[in-house]
Amino acid sequence: DIMKLFKPIKESDASLRVKKIFQDIKKTRKIKLIPNFWRSLAHNPNTLERTWKNLKQIMKKGALDSVTKELIYVAVSITNSCEYCTRSHTYAAKKKGATEQMIKEMIDVVGLANQNNKLVEAYQIEVDKIYK
Amino acid sequence: DIMKLFKPIKESDASLRVKKIFQDIKKTRKIKLIPNFWRSLAHNPNTLERTWKNLKQIMKKGALDSVTKELIYVAVSITNSCEYCTRSHTYAAKKKGATEQMIKEMIDVVGLANQNNKLVEAYQIEVDKIYK
Amino acid sequence: DIMKLFKPIKESDASLRVKKIFQDIKKTRKIKLIPNFWRSLAHNPNTLERTWKNLKQIMKKGALDSVTKELIYVAVSITNSCEYCTRSHTYAAKKKGATEQMIKEMIDVVGLANQNNKLVEAYQIEVDKIYK
Amino acid sequence: DIMKLFKPIKESDASLRVKKIFQDIKKTRKIKLIPNFWRSLAHNPNTLERTWKNLKQIMKKGALDSVTKELIYVAVSITNSCEYCTRSHTYAAKKKGATEQMIKEMIDVVGLANQNNKLVEAYQIEVDKIYK
Amino acid sequence: DIMKLFKPIKESDASLRVKKIFQDIKKTRKIKLIPNFWRSLAHNPNTLERTWKNLKQIMKKGALDSVTKELIYVAVSITNSCEYCTRSHTYAAKKKGATEQMIKEMIDVVGLANQNNKLVEAYQIEVDKIYK
Amino acid sequence: DIMKLFKPIKESDASLRVKKIFQDIKKTRKIKLIPNFWRSLAHNPNTLERTWKNLKQIMKKGALDSVTKELIYVAVSITNSCEYCTRSHTYAAKKKGATEQMIKEMIDVVGLANQNNKLVEAYQIEVDKIYK
Repeated sequence: DIMKLFKPIKESDASLRVKKIFQDIKKTRKIKLIPNFWRSLAHNPNTLERTWKNLKQIMKKGALDSVTKELIYVAVSITNSCEYCTRSHTYAAKKKGATEQMIKEMIDVVGLANQNNKLVEAYQIEVDKIYK
Repeated sequence: DIMKLFKPIKESDASLRVKKIFQDIKKTRKIKLIPNFWRSLAHNPNTLERTWKNLKQIMKKGALDSVTKELIYVAVSITNSCEYCTRSHTYAAKKKGATEQMIKEMIDVVGLANQNNKLVEAYQIEVDKIYK
Repeated sequence: DIMKLFKPIKESDASLRVKKIFQDIKKTRKIKLIPNFWRSLAHNPNTLERTWKNLKQIMKKGALDSVTKELIYVAVSITNSCEYCTRSHTYAAKKKGATEQMIKEMIDVVGLANQNNKLVEAYQIEVDKIYK
Repeated sequence: DIMKLFKPIKESDASLRVKKIFQDIKKTRKIKLIPNFWRSLAHNPNTLERTWKNLKQIMKKGALDSVTKELIYVAVSITNSCEYCTRSHTYAAKKKGATEQMIKEMIDVVGLANQNNKLVEAYQIEVDKIYK
Repeated sequence: DIMKLFKPIKESDASLRVKKIFQDIKKTRKIKLIPNFWRSLAHNPNTLERTWKNLKQIMKKGALDSVTKELIYVAVSITNSCEYCTRSHTYAAKKKGATEQMIKEMIDVVGLANQNNKLVEAYQIEVDKIYK
Repeated sequence: DIMKLFKPIKESDASLRVKKIFQDIKKTRKIKLIPNFWRSLAHNPNTLERTWKNLKQIMKKGALDSVTKELIYVAVSITNSCEYCTRSHTYAAKKKGATEQMIKEMIDVVGLANQNNKLVEAYQIEVDKIYK
């Protein structure tokens, strides 16, 4: 099957190493089914392990709370036109406590920033001294 | 001068309509000098007015506080590789109270999201039912 | 039909000029059916001819072998979130001899580069003298 | 200093933890000076460590040789318009043995892929069955 | 319903404020059904009103005629890989008088510009004095 | 010189093949000096020839006039944040007759489209039947 690489691996078909990572994902995320993202990365256990470790370290509460981090994640995903990422992290944001109003305001900022980013390119605006 | 369009307009050279908008920007933002962004948009007073109005409405405190909104704005600007926007809104975020630690954590989320967005494209991952 | 432009043209409906290009594609690519990409470009025979010529010249073995070129093509397509391009050129890469392991490693590089590209923007890093 | 975050940290000013990572970078890369990228990430030792670990794991010879990986990295960086990344990894590619001809051919593929990616979007081309 | 935000609002379910904007869209655009774009923005009446006002002001005939403006809009949407935007504004362009030949030529320019934009990044080309 | 590839080639140092292409560029464009773009592509005469041929074929007056084509080219270049391309093709557009007002309106459309493209991604808007 020439496109095998793109099919998510079933939990029951996963290797022992992958299964252990899946267990940690379920426990940490309080979910019962492993989402397609992790089941696809399982084609490459190194990538799966590295990506899960990075995500766990980066997305945990710090100076920024978890909800804010998820909203920033979604803002980037919208800007990159990644439907899967937008939907899954909007879901995560809501689960962690983001309200609909917060999501709407985040979207407005994303729209505005994308517009103004291009106005800056269009007018070839130089950085003010005060910002350097 | 064929590239005149790209030179920021001096405050003293601005039309009355533009000057009034500049006054509002200074007052609202508590700054003394109009940044190059607004002085460049002044080539097109309609655009200047519309952009300033939109920004004022969108970036003010709501369900999300001003600092969070600025951080989201910066996250988008980094993703779009807009130096001016990244620098000026990082400046604004700090002025409104963002700490260095908050900015660093926002940057980490931006890096992670950009990586994972592409892993999703690479593995052509389908949206899980739970996210629809 | 207002959206006619977006429907691939059937091989049997193609003009003589288009048919000749289709023959060359089939022969060169060792395929029996013309993919949707070329059948869609056929709406504009000049574009079809130019694109096919460019692709033939650029993708043929040179200092880089064909597999490496296909992998680079896929890396760009992932970065641009182009599903059609990612799937069709992954297919081509495999047909020309790319292994699953090679594809996985290419994907890892794409993920890493996309992350680091944004870290560079975030920290506004200046080019070191040694790189100029 | 409000923009301190954006200034690369001097090797001599680095913390012990950072210095150890710098040593490993120098040894692995066979270089004498730490580039601005790593000196900037040093503002956030976690990010520095994670990024260096990821890069070391991903960019080492595997099914793909190091030169091919560097060329893929550059291809992504060009597509993302990241000057620093393009220059520094072109430098790395050359140091590892990439010839000028190889770099030129990589650039041609990048140009072609970017063009065709957009033709695919323009004509809204559906994925052929054979690619699924 | 956790993903409610993403479902277009029915015209009959809209608030009075939203209904008035919908009336104006129908009248101005000479259409009978409100497209999904506006019905989705209706989740956020401020965004709906602002976006419609901006669009009405920007897309109306000026120094550039409406067809040219729609073609520029489509060119940007193709470059950003936005299928909805590409399809809906190609539709609008045709309705306003754009011929198939005009659309094909616009697509060719988009393809060329995307290729050359990347060649410029690849060769790190400095701006000629004459262009400054 | 490890970064030689990135230095524009002097007209007097060019090969005969390159010199002939340079002559054609000068004549067609009515310019006296070859811009850095073409002098950089001259590192790869095949790319130079192909790119110049494509550009000549695509940018000439057709169903769209030359000014409109240049404006579309600039719109794409702004969206891709390519400074060189934005400046050089704004220059070309003006030389061919684009007024400042036309350029300003094009910029407004670019800003709007970039904003709305992201609102579409944010709300995950499905294509209306009428647009298919």
